[in-house]
Amino acid sequence: MTRTRPARLRRGSTVAVVAPAGPVDPDLLAAGVAVLESWDLTVKLAPHVLDRHPTLPYLAGRDVDRAADFEAAWCDPEVAAVLCARGGYGSQRVLDLLDWDAMAAAGPKILAGSSDTTVLHDAVGAALDVVTLFAPMIAGPLFDADAQRHLQDTLFYPESVKRLIGPNTATAGHGVAEGVTVGGNLSLITANLGAANFFPPPDGAILLLEDVGEAPYRIDRMLTQLLRAGWFTSVSGVALGSWARCGDLAEIDRVVEDLLGGLGLPMVWELGFGHCPGQLTVPLGAEAVLDADNGTLTMSDAALS
Amino acid sequence: MTRTRPARLRRGSTVAVVAPAGPVDPDLLAAGVAVLESWDLTVKLAPHVLDRHPTLPYLAGRDVDRAADFEAAWCDPEVAAVLCARGGYGSQRVLDLLDWDAMAAAGPKILAGSSDTTVLHDAVGAALDVVTLFAPMIAGPLFDADAQRHLQDTLFYPESVKRLIGPNTATAGHGVAEGVTVGGNLSLITANLGAANFFPPPDGAILLLEDVGEAPYRIDRMLTQLLRAGWFTSVSGVALGSWARCGDLAEIDRVVEDLLGGLGLPMVWELGFGHCPGQLTVPLGAEAVLDADNGTLTMSDAALS
Repeated sequence: MTRTRPARLRRGSTVAVVAPAGPVDPDLLAAGVAVLESWDLTVKLAPHVLDRHPTLPYLAGRDVDRAADFEAAWCDPEVAAVLCARGGYGSQRVLDLLDWDAMAAAGPKILAGSSDTTVLHDAVGAALDVVTLFAPMIAGPLFDADAQRHLQDTLFYPESVKRLIGPNTATAGHGVAEGVTVGGNLSLITANLGAANFFPPPDGAILLLEDVGEAPYRIDRMLTQLLRAGWFTSVSGVALGSWARCGDLAEIDRVVEDLLGGLGLPMVWELGFGHCPGQLTVPLGAEAVLDADNGTLTMSDAALS
Repeated sequence: MTRTRPARLRRGSTVAVVAPAGPVDPDLLAAGVAVLESWDLTVKLAPHVLDRHPTLPYLAGRDVDRAADFEAAWCDPEVAAVLCARGGYGSQRVLDLLDWDAMAAAGPKILAGSSDTTVLHDAVGAALDVVTLFAPMIAGPLFDADAQRHLQDTLFYPESVKRLIGPNTATAGHGVAEGVTVGGNLSLITANLGAANFFPPPDGAILLLEDVGEAPYRIDRMLTQLLRAGWFTSVSGVALGSWARCGDLAEIDRVVEDLLGGLGLPMVWELGFGHCPGQLTVPLGAEAVLDADNGTLTMSDAALS
């Protein structure tokens, strides 16, 4: 059941930058594109990447245009990677507008992004059977030097970053789990529940969870929803990322302990992905080993071929 | 498929006040109890109504205690109505701890509450086949004189309040719908999606929606989730309540129009229920007619027998 690993990037590879969710800041976009170009990548900006929705200010353009940009980038034979400019909200609104058959015919390529992109990872990974990258946003405020370096290493030299550990990683439940990485942003995982084309985690999955701007009671509500939906019956280990602007971290620790502690799963706290400085790029849909005793997540293979 | 209407209250009836969700303010509870006693009701306070959870400050006591209080109140043969002290968050954590067979054996009675109580309405209404009341919280900050009067009228003289209209009600989509009222708080409706014992709306349902403290993009995300989950295929009309502290009402109007406008459903804006002054008590699980041209929701029968 191993998913296809897209080809790694090389100097001169072409990447597309798209905006499937919130409106993009032109200056941050220019800065992110300059970084990509400094890696000797050729950058194609999607036609609607700087659009604004006519009535809803939290969206980067109309649903049909955001969907067309994503699909065109994926289906462009020159494009080796589709990079999301930023998160916010809106990817869900394009999911059901994509031509999945056309995208499958285009063959495997890299999808990178995080936060709101979680729903695209979920859909693209499962529908197109590819490993994807939970990675910093090109035009996001957290695309700092460390995050850039780790993304660059993952894109160009994926065997060099198979072992992931954050600066503050700690164990939150002992043992070792082996399985396929899933998840990402908790709000977006729960926001997909109930959808007809929703994909539950594969058996033995290692679940990644992070969020931003969600109070502890909301984290509780979302974990409770996943528990009541039976999600954790498939999960063999949990890798927690950042909880930026979510209030008291000690309280979130107590929420997680209260709801998940009794499951006895290997669990790691602050693995260094999500909305944090130096955000690590984490492969999704990839076989990995979560070692909660040593606080590491190690990919069984390089994320890209 | 008409649900059982619980018996109306009379002078001397006994009611129980429980706290299935957030921690209760003792002064607000005393004030609310005084109102109930002024209606010649005998009030039984649940043993754990003023508890605090040992580690999670947003919960009124431990899950087992909140569940035990709710179940004991429902099963107490003296109790004619179970009134929720306040919302916040936490009712979901008790749903799967209740003895539904014991509660069914206790026979129909009144459940009243709103906000977080939405998940109890959903579960109690469907599992016990009773009409429930989306009503102000006894120990909430919005239990004002108008809200008290409308709740009292509904509890004692339900035929006098069959026709609901708010002070600012406006049409948001024309026509007339006839069906069973469902819903309540949007966040809690979506937070139930995916649960094994989740109940989709009956065919032809009139959906009530309101929320508090949710930014427009979150309202979008939740409506998008309900749409993607197929919820609106069963809905024949939409009655919108208050959007308190949800940001710009004009933007929420645009969100609703963008996502639901195309469905062509009869829809009413600001019916006067939810987190607003003078909160109306709205029967759930009851046959009603939504007249979007005149901005009214009219119960086919009195909510209580």
